[in-house]
Amino acid sequence: MLTEHELHSSLADPSLAVMSFLNEATLRFPDAISLAAGRPYEGFFALDRINDYLSHYLEHAREQGRDEAAITRELFQYGPTAGTIRELIARMLLKDEGLVAAPQDVVVTAGCQEALLIVLRALFADAEDVLLVPSPSYTGVTGAALLLDVSVEPVPEGPAGLEPAQVRATVERLRAAGRRPRALYLVPEASNPTGSSLSLPARRELLAVAKEYDILLLEDHAYAVFSPAGSPPALKALDTDRRVIHIGTFAKSGFPGLRIGYLVADQLIRRADGSTRPLSAALADVKSMVTVNTSPITQAVAGGMLLRHGLSLRAANTEAAAFYRANLRTAAAALAERFGSSGLPVSWNEPDRGFFMVVTVPFEVDDAALEASARDYGVLWTPMRYFQAAGAERQLRLSVSYLTPEQVRQGVHRLADFIEDRCAVPRYEEVDSLVA
Amino acid sequence: MLTEHELHSSLADPSLAVMSFLNEATLRFPDAISLAAGRPYEGFFALDRINDYLSHYLEHAREQGRDEAAITRELFQYGPTAGTIRELIARMLLKDEGLVAAPQDVVVTAGCQEALLIVLRALFADAEDVLLVPSPSYTGVTGAALLLDVSVEPVPEGPAGLEPAQVRATVERLRAAGRRPRALYLVPEASNPTGSSLSLPARRELLAVAKEYDILLLEDHAYAVFSPAGSPPALKALDTDRRVIHIGTFAKSGFPGLRIGYLVADQLIRRADGSTRPLSAALADVKSMVTVNTSPITQAVAGGMLLRHGLSLRAANTEAAAFYRANLRTAAAALAERFGSSGLPVSWNEPDRGFFMVVTVPFEVDDAALEASARDYGVLWTPMRYFQAAGAERQLRLSVSYLTPEQVRQGVHRLADFIEDRCAVPRYEEVDSLVA
Repeated sequence: MLTEHELHSSLADPSLAVMSFLNEATLRFPDAISLAAGRPYEGFFALDRINDYLSHYLEHAREQGRDEAAITRELFQYGPTAGTIRELIARMLLKDEGLVAAPQDVVVTAGCQEALLIVLRALFADAEDVLLVPSPSYTGVTGAALLLDVSVEPVPEGPAGLEPAQVRATVERLRAAGRRPRALYLVPEASNPTGSSLSLPARRELLAVAKEYDILLLEDHAYAVFSPAGSPPALKALDTDRRVIHIGTFAKSGFPGLRIGYLVADQLIRRADGSTRPLSAALADVKSMVTVNTSPITQAVAGGMLLRHGLSLRAANTEAAAFYRANLRTAAAALAERFGSSGLPVSWNEPDRGFFMVVTVPFEVDDAALEASARDYGVLWTPMRYFQAAGAERQLRLSVSYLTPEQVRQGVHRLADFIEDRCAVPRYEEVDSLVA
Repeated sequence: MLTEHELHSSLADPSLAVMSFLNEATLRFPDAISLAAGRPYEGFFALDRINDYLSHYLEHAREQGRDEAAITRELFQYGPTAGTIRELIARMLLKDEGLVAAPQDVVVTAGCQEALLIVLRALFADAEDVLLVPSPSYTGVTGAALLLDVSVEPVPEGPAGLEPAQVRATVERLRAAGRRPRALYLVPEASNPTGSSLSLPARRELLAVAKEYDILLLEDHAYAVFSPAGSPPALKALDTDRRVIHIGTFAKSGFPGLRIGYLVADQLIRRADGSTRPLSAALADVKSMVTVNTSPITQAVAGGMLLRHGLSLRAANTEAAAFYRANLRTAAAALAERFGSSGLPVSWNEPDRGFFMVVTVPFEVDDAALEASARDYGVLWTPMRYFQAAGAERQLRLSVSYLTPEQVRQGVHRLADFIEDRCAVPRYEEVDSLVA
């Protein structure tokens, strides 16, 4: 039998199980209303979309003059490591984000998660290197860091999200301790898990801090497609100094089953002999040893979706964006209805975009609380402590994306019942860990 | 600008580029005959297969009584980390390989490459741990080790492939030096890159060595589906001591564009508190931080392929197996025709199964030789030095899988022209590295 201590340290770390937990909790409690995982609403799915998008992509390829053998080869055979739909993604980024990316700077990945993993692998060389993450932070980036033995340093967020002054202070403190901050991961728009979005001045200031301290910004742009017109541009669209690696995904703007993400890296690497090579090419080499290449079949489905919608994911998601924003308002209204004049010390933020919001309660929010909520009240959510959030032991994340408006309302009321009962009972029995 | 020395060491290692090179060389020299990469023959591909297999899978799901919402959710939404077609794969393994695997021991991966990466990540904990690989070895396993800073020790192969006595000697030497051999990677059937297959006694002896020295065997079974009836069983089918982690892929037996692989791990992990958990569950947690989950769309296509062929990949590949075996005979015959009585010191092995064979020539086989062969003779192949093969500087790998019999014959004749000319010219100019 294998013993845990002889295996990689990540296996004994409970945070490694969080991703599976988030994706599988709804399977464990099928009758509970899930305000837990960041899953898109299933009313936007339809089985015939797969074949429709695929056919549309094939039609486009034929119109481009490609013959059947070449098209068949693309879908069935091994193919380019960096992807088959780089150009379509570059055109989408220009149209949707005003982000000028050369197709050769794009690497298509098996979801945003693989993009995070390969970027961390390339950038982090030794034990002195540190990855900065907001606190709280998306669990995928800290999980990837755990697998690669990359040191992570949390930067506490303020009420409006990540604060450039805090980033600066953290970098200076780490440097003084002989560490080497290499990159800062962040979700500047409709953050996971808090729902907050950075202002334009904050974005510009972060770019200035990155330049000053020679660090890279890893911009996770998963939820930006749902933001209203007039929102601040992506960091990458403001980046004049090649400071930003931009990471995106079709999981929220298309559907998760595609497992298609991408990164945009326009940085250069100077070799020992003085020659240069694109970072994107080096990242593709790393990717080749993780998944060889991304399925050209699901790339074709994603490409067909782009083509169907005039190369605009924002256009494809107009209805979805309105739906999610209405759900956020519904959740906030239900919380106000229950706690606005209850006298209980329960508060929440009110993001107007994205999938998430945060509720603060007057008791410990742990696995046992979640288990009790799911089992006895029929509602799932996520303890904020899953998100590298020191000081957030009394917070929970609500995801409103997966549900109908009526389910959101009902789910929040179930949560409110749970919270009220907890507030009434100062002590409660511990139950077995849900994640264990 | 980034400098190479501040990035992960793998980026400066030329072997990291081999996978992309193998997959993209045919793109660089579109008119050359490719005896290089291990790509399946495209005559077995047809565009309508994707929809046919997918439809068949959906039909099967409906027959099982699942409703449209559940099926749509499976294909579009986030899903179980370990995969949606574990049971179908377990049934195929029983039918094709006599390998008894519980569905919960199976983890579906984004190709065999991800399976290798997550297994290495889980098993290798510190700098004393060593992965044994045959020399020569498949480049995917050494590439994954490079990304994870896992130490690799080659075990020289004999004429019939990996020799248990050599494994034993290597393990003892490493232990004496204070190192800790943890696992041996191998392709026991129709090996990549040599084409050799291990005898039944050699397999049993390797299992005994693994037990004696407490190491795991990582069995890569990618090519076994093409072997004739009566071939020795998979190591995993002979494994009575949970010594083997079995790794398979649909890339050769189905098609590479699926990017579907799988692993079978029935080992247990003993935790610090004395409780146990399945290794497969821990590997799924690792996978969740690499790619979250494998696309349920391509899993459904692979599942549909299995269902179409009575859950037998061997049945699905009867024609392909005969085709590849004939191509191996064609290549050997063409080499015999050119070199059998030429007096030149050129030799080759004659595997009767799989995709590959090895040719030994009387000159250095390097990138420059390959570049010249591709450019001036119109034929691609792979220098054996790409495969961790010390002492194989004068060998090259031929892959016969990608070509028609006539192309194989013509490719080998072009290669023979190149070899003859090289033998006639003792010195030649170096040209720029092809991989550079």
